[in-house]
Amino acid sequence: MYNNLYNDLVVIGGNASGLAAASQARRVNPDLNITVLESGKYISYGSCSLPYFISGYVKRVEDLLAYPKDFFEQKRNIKILMGHRVVGIDPSKKELLVRIGQAQENRIIEYDKLIISSGGTTIIPDIPGIDSSNVFQFRNVEDAENLKNYIDSNNLKKAAVIGGGAIGMLMAEAFNKIGIKTTVVEKKERIYNEFEYEIGSILTRKAEMDGIDILTKTSITSVKTGSGQSTITVEDANGKKDLDYDLVVLATGISANTGFLSDTSIELGINDAIKVDNKLQSSHMNIYASGDCATIKNIVTGKQDHIPTANNAVKTGRIAGENAGGGNKVFNGSVGTVVDKVLGLEIASTGIGSKEAVALGYDAIKLIDSFSSHAGSIPGAKKIAIIIIVDTASRRLLGAQMIGGEGVGKRIDVFAAAITNEMTVDDIYMLDLSYAPAISTVWDPVNKICGKAVLALDGKSV
Amino acid sequence: MYNNLYNDLVVIGGNASGLAAASQARRVNPDLNITVLESGKYISYGSCSLPYFISGYVKRVEDLLAYPKDFFEQKRNIKILMGHRVVGIDPSKKELLVRIGQAQENRIIEYDKLIISSGGTTIIPDIPGIDSSNVFQFRNVEDAENLKNYIDSNNLKKAAVIGGGAIGMLMAEAFNKIGIKTTVVEKKERIYNEFEYEIGSILTRKAEMDGIDILTKTSITSVKTGSGQSTITVEDANGKKDLDYDLVVLATGISANTGFLSDTSIELGINDAIKVDNKLQSSHMNIYASGDCATIKNIVTGKQDHIPTANNAVKTGRIAGENAGGGNKVFNGSVGTVVDKVLGLEIASTGIGSKEAVALGYDAIKLIDSFSSHAGSIPGAKKIAIIIIVDTASRRLLGAQMIGGEGVGKRIDVFAAAITNEMTVDDIYMLDLSYAPAISTVWDPVNKICGKAVLALDGKSV
Repeated sequence: MYNNLYNDLVVIGGNASGLAAASQARRVNPDLNITVLESGKYISYGSCSLPYFISGYVKRVEDLLAYPKDFFEQKRNIKILMGHRVVGIDPSKKELLVRIGQAQENRIIEYDKLIISSGGTTIIPDIPGIDSSNVFQFRNVEDAENLKNYIDSNNLKKAAVIGGGAIGMLMAEAFNKIGIKTTVVEKKERIYNEFEYEIGSILTRKAEMDGIDILTKTSITSVKTGSGQSTITVEDANGKKDLDYDLVVLATGISANTGFLSDTSIELGINDAIKVDNKLQSSHMNIYASGDCATIKNIVTGKQDHIPTANNAVKTGRIAGENAGGGNKVFNGSVGTVVDKVLGLEIASTGIGSKEAVALGYDAIKLIDSFSSHAGSIPGAKKIAIIIIVDTASRRLLGAQMIGGEGVGKRIDVFAAAITNEMTVDDIYMLDLSYAPAISTVWDPVNKICGKAVLALDGKSV
Repeated sequence: MYNNLYNDLVVIGGNASGLAAASQARRVNPDLNITVLESGKYISYGSCSLPYFISGYVKRVEDLLAYPKDFFEQKRNIKILMGHRVVGIDPSKKELLVRIGQAQENRIIEYDKLIISSGGTTIIPDIPGIDSSNVFQFRNVEDAENLKNYIDSNNLKKAAVIGGGAIGMLMAEAFNKIGIKTTVVEKKERIYNEFEYEIGSILTRKAEMDGIDILTKTSITSVKTGSGQSTITVEDANGKKDLDYDLVVLATGISANTGFLSDTSIELGINDAIKVDNKLQSSHMNIYASGDCATIKNIVTGKQDHIPTANNAVKTGRIAGENAGGGNKVFNGSVGTVVDKVLGLEIASTGIGSKEAVALGYDAIKLIDSFSSHAGSIPGAKKIAIIIIVDTASRRLLGAQMIGGEGVGKRIDVFAAAITNEMTVDDIYMLDLSYAPAISTVWDPVNKICGKAVLALDGKSV
């Protein structure tokens, strides 16, 4: 197993970003010898659909997989090696040290160009007992399978989800759906804490109505597991207390999965993500990086940021693959667009929030209002709350956030397009957006909130 | 009734555009004496919701009215005169000749500034018998009431809708819903003929599945009405034939309602719409025009066009009111964004179509593909077909059209924002659009179709 294996291009990571990269490199150059190394036993899965596997909406693991291995091997002539975990890189020799399966032996794989698309990894709180057998991570298909098996083979009544971000709330929703009473433990001031506070407040009310308990400003300080049940010790302003759960899931945030680069001179940035330039090239000439393990240019701030979304993963993968394959494309960056459907509410954000705007030195105003998703005369209209952040000097939109029962997900994209194009609220107010009674209101909510901003900027009563 | 009435500002037309104009003039200048003249007995109604009144989705006329008269009079200090039909204008004297109600006498109303927001009018085919008692127009609340009363007080079995555009198809849907067998008679090659042909073809299949008959390349040459039933004579390539219907509805297109200006020197343009500049000013200094009766700048072609949508009506009304009230705002124009929900399908368009692109001298390519509205693993995803028109020289998007079961209405708005900002397909392909499994696919369909265009422009296999 010590034979060397030479490749024109090696891609580390067989999920969305790595496979987008390998596929684009193949398009650019039909002759390249391309190999993808995947540490796990699945490739091309939809991480964002994993909570639906727990809730039972998605029945089978296979339904989570977008494309089978054969598709890449046969249609795209890309070799896929499963169970190949890269444990070291020697950029000067262009060699990877790869551990295969559970074996103790390593293999050397050589590359001419390398793309690192190793994804993200759950941030594990450094507390006693966190490695207990009923404390679960939830990042990949294997994690989801482990958790599902545990749920199916035990009679679980109560779960704690540590972290009230999008993944935490989706897990809480999934547990709630299958009858497991759930508490979300969030150390920050509120759930969805990276959003404007109104979003977290609205979602908290919905979660509590649905029977999910929310503990905020609460840290977890230890886990003790005995005979299938965990006692977690939590601490808030009133002190410590012990709570008993059958199951604990960590949704404590994502950092870049770049631990295996610690002995290399490949530069890392925010959240340990690999620093890349606008061609997705790392600090090393022949090494590119894409997806959750890499930095990405934030179009609003102009700085390298870490925005680990699937939408960014496939796009940066595509550009990294283009360039590693011999092309020369520039990636303009991301405006940080995200959407989730949680507890029946669509929640979305693009651009920057009010705190970030202040931190960046903008004299910004924040507007909030609620609207009907479509004309009230037609049944089924839902309420949408929209928040926008506007720079008073340039009158440019800096950020937008929305929460509501329908029509949020793709309206946030109109804001994303507006921010990408540096539009002023004046111009968005007059943007020619579609209207039909079953789809929108005559002035679309996107127009309306910007009209409100125009009045505020002009010093008129809103 | 011959007393003069002086006003700082008179607005002709009490629907969306006129009321937006009057309201904005009030905001700009709290002291103006503002009067709105409405020829009918309703103001502020949603024309686009009228078909839902026929189908019974909307139960009461009141539900079609956005704001009552009192709102404008009391909250905004705007005088509303109902049943006031302007029959003549003397711009040199700044006088309007106004017919009140059914009276034979006229009244003179003076203005300092005038905004004409008189809306659109159904184009009536010039054929014998078109004024028969069971031939209906369908443009305003009175038309809808007349039709509804006729339906409710007669046992109608068969209707013909003349014209297969959006209004015609919405009427066909409404009749179908209440059990009236309907035939759509369209003189052009297919229904939805202003759209790319694929859209009309998909909609035709759906209509026929739903039991609506579609006759295309068929003109109506005469109507004969006797004892409640009409015989319409239609003509196609095979000759003439007579068909019997209980009811005929004209959905034969909209022209500007500007007949009352025929004796004036106010310049008219396309579809008899009042020519305006980018401040919504007509050929006369003190006369502005907005909404369906006015031309509007088409952002893609750069030319004055006639795009009678509600979304344009309120926006141009707002700008006309601002400027007539003493402000100085420029209207950038429209990209012609429209959406309808017809027979369960959302159908939308923005920018220009392939025929128009050719006529304007673009070397354009057209791409079409179909996509899933959201991730296939989550139940409820619908098929969306997207067509885009791209200029090969600049790689700019010129137009986009969509049809599908969900997620069309606001996705077209992303294209509208992209066209407004003159984006290339390369940049739209990389636009940071939101993804969650219940909302979209990882590459949004908007990204995907543009990615296909990039490959085509680069001469690669799509």
